[in-house]
Amino acid sequence: MAEDFVLYGYFRSSAAFRARIALNVKGIKPELRFIHLLKDGGQQHDADYKALNPQELIPALVHEGHTVTQSLAIIEYLNEILPEPPLLPADAEGRARAREIAYVIACDIHPVNNLRLGQYMKREWGKTDDDVFAWHRHWIKTGFDALETMLATSPATGKFCHSDAPTIADICLIPQMANARRVNLDLSHYPTLTRIEAHALAHPAFDAALPKNQPDAE
Amino acid sequence: MAEDFVLYGYFRSSAAFRARIALNVKGIKPELRFIHLLKDGGQQHDADYKALNPQELIPALVHEGHTVTQSLAIIEYLNEILPEPPLLPADAEGRARAREIAYVIACDIHPVNNLRLGQYMKREWGKTDDDVFAWHRHWIKTGFDALETMLATSPATGKFCHSDAPTIADICLIPQMANARRVNLDLSHYPTLTRIEAHALAHPAFDAALPKNQPDAE
Repeated sequence: MAEDFVLYGYFRSSAAFRARIALNVKGIKPELRFIHLLKDGGQQHDADYKALNPQELIPALVHEGHTVTQSLAIIEYLNEILPEPPLLPADAEGRARAREIAYVIACDIHPVNNLRLGQYMKREWGKTDDDVFAWHRHWIKTGFDALETMLATSPATGKFCHSDAPTIADICLIPQMANARRVNLDLSHYPTLTRIEAHALAHPAFDAALPKNQPDAE
Repeated sequence: MAEDFVLYGYFRSSAAFRARIALNVKGIKPELRFIHLLKDGGQQHDADYKALNPQELIPALVHEGHTVTQSLAIIEYLNEILPEPPLLPADAEGRARAREIAYVIACDIHPVNNLRLGQYMKREWGKTDDDVFAWHRHWIKTGFDALETMLATSPATGKFCHSDAPTIADICLIPQMANARRVNLDLSHYPTLTRIEAHALAHPAFDAALPKNQPDAE
């Protein structure tokens, strides 16, 4: 199956991390191509890659000649073409909840802390690494405070964010936990998030997708 | 059907605008409740609303006693419980493309320009309205540059973002066009986006969802 899928990624990117987890859950071993986000001024800006993804962001998945960008679109696409094991709950209400949790992270936390935003703040406003660090911490904290409440108060939460099987929600949560640690966010306030993280990291699909387990890890 | 659905929104919110379009396409007339994002320090922070949505963001849709937050989750949920007319293309590749376009906007443009980010920049860094304005314009331009290329170069683009019927992609695009105008972005560089916008605004579901056509419009 490797020849059918090509994944463009970078070991440290949370969005690529998500795509790797989804591919692993589905048992797909794609051909990997590495786009270094810092080297050469950012290889995502190279003309060849820009032709593949005009957004100049990773990941991008090429499947049978067509390209899907945006990690959430990749997850939904993989789940549609290979329904088992599912990445979404079986019922509409559960699917809405799993997507809701995913979007809290993928819309309201992660893009706000994207590399390019920090680059703008430094370039245009003379902000320091510490300023950008504090910014990241603030928005992860804001999102995690809400997420902890959402997860801790719902009977639908199980060993994973929704019941006992991994969904799109966990696929978004686990990479974001790594980002939270990178900015020294105190995770003791989030017992539900850390419990789910520990459970997820014992799952081979999550473990194999970790940045440190990638061929391009530094 | 009104008694089955309650929508918490605000006329000017892009995310609530999206939910309104989706409800209109599906022919649902929800009971409307208004959460003023600026009055009283932001009514989204009131305890009653926070109990409904711990993220303290709008929109929130209550359907038969359970709450769905996150506009994209609301759109997918409505499309699952009421499949016609569809808000996603019929084929997996098309669905991936429509979601990809939606996420370019809903992940990488819109949250970066959320009200609360500008509030942080002013409060913590002493940034001015003009600074925040320039920030908004920069990220809308970055996203729209990619989006115009994606749409102008694909044979799948039709009268709407994907073929000739409205999808989740248009539901995200049209509110973002209004935001682009608010920060005086020069839209002459985006002939495909403006063409699709003009077509969408002639559709009653989009027109009725416009901020100016809401009961709480100022």
